[in-house]
Amino acid sequence: MEIAMLGGTGDIGRGLALRMGHDTDHAILIGSREAARAEDRAATYRDTLTARGGSPDIAGAHNEDVASRGDIVILAVPPYHIRSLTESIGGELGEGAILVSPAVGMQRDQAGFHYDPPGRGSVTELVAASAPGANPVIGAYHTLAADRLADLDATLGVDTPIFGDDPAAKSTVIEFTRELEGLRPLDAGPLTNAPEAEGITPLLLNIAQQNDGMDDLGVRFR
Amino acid sequence: MEIAMLGGTGDIGRGLALRMGHDTDHAILIGSREAARAEDRAATYRDTLTARGGSPDIAGAHNEDVASRGDIVILAVPPYHIRSLTESIGGELGEGAILVSPAVGMQRDQAGFHYDPPGRGSVTELVAASAPGANPVIGAYHTLAADRLADLDATLGVDTPIFGDDPAAKSTVIEFTRELEGLRPLDAGPLTNAPEAEGITPLLLNIAQQNDGMDDLGVRFR
Repeated sequence: MEIAMLGGTGDIGRGLALRMGHDTDHAILIGSREAARAEDRAATYRDTLTARGGSPDIAGAHNEDVASRGDIVILAVPPYHIRSLTESIGGELGEGAILVSPAVGMQRDQAGFHYDPPGRGSVTELVAASAPGANPVIGAYHTLAADRLADLDATLGVDTPIFGDDPAAKSTVIEFTRELEGLRPLDAGPLTNAPEAEGITPLLLNIAQQNDGMDDLGVRFR
Repeated sequence: MEIAMLGGTGDIGRGLALRMGHDTDHAILIGSREAARAEDRAATYRDTLTARGGSPDIAGAHNEDVASRGDIVILAVPPYHIRSLTESIGGELGEGAILVSPAVGMQRDQAGFHYDPPGRGSVTELVAASAPGANPVIGAYHTLAADRLADLDATLGVDTPIFGDDPAAKSTVIEFTRELEGLRPLDAGPLTNAPEAEGITPLLLNIAQQNDGMDDLGVRFR
């Protein structure tokens, strides 16, 4: 498959791209609003993986270009960019391409981080509402720590709840995610169930803030 | 210490009371709206623990009676009973008694379970708003599965985020919770951070619903 990582130059995009390039044989396409920046980062990711003995298939291009080629299109951008991104890639997506939303809305105040969903209920549901045409939307990877993903020596040993209304698309993302070492995908029902998973991310940051040595946390259901 | 378990005849109250009676030497006071029912259940819990070789200190009485004696007063009741319960025990609480709120608001529809906080932001914050006088409020135990707590042969191996605005009361609850085997308390900041932890409970139920063999889940941050 071709995995398009829109916003692939950001923290979570970098972490996911490195893990996916490291653990799978799929082609990874790094997208950015600037093609040159995407190409530059793709080269960096390639170098990192080649230095570890891999032969990564990673290239960079403009978000819209990348989106048009992805079988799985991951929207690794901040929630306030979701709507403009889905509008800009709207006509570009291939038939059956699966959109995956890992973004989480948060606000921070003195007490800590707080879940701040859009009016739609969750960022995942906002993607579904603003996604063009018939492309299925899947919520995934909300609670993964970017730096831990990017540290290829770190074991993950965590879960990621997967949300979707299209059973075939959900199965595809679950099967693909199983290729990532130490990451267990768990079906958590339809898209409307996503808010509670997105809400875990601020909790992880609050726990990290209050407890020494608990950085870059993930979650395991057991 | 004396641990007052209001609503101690319900599922989560039973689970917490059995674990606390099993793993600690503190006196456990089972509360109910009917004293006879509380006494009856306390006898059952005593029998369960005695049969396992323990010498439990567990008694039952009316909620208000129990509340007046607890150093830690756990409000193990459904969220829609919180306000009437805190009103009824208002004048009874001892000075410095710590109120602990484990309740979670949920709704269920065809898609699954959904977090349904009261207008106050979280059940924990509702307790804080309706609690009388100067008694500190701590949010804890939101994500624990009642049946797994009650199964004393089951290992827990899970975490429980702890929320509170009073550092001394939070430390007391954290230290007490450390006595429960396999349960790791984690400071997660002030009460205002509680919604995201309460929201995990419906997610656990949704994952259980979608995945065979994943019942009575808890959560581990790692």
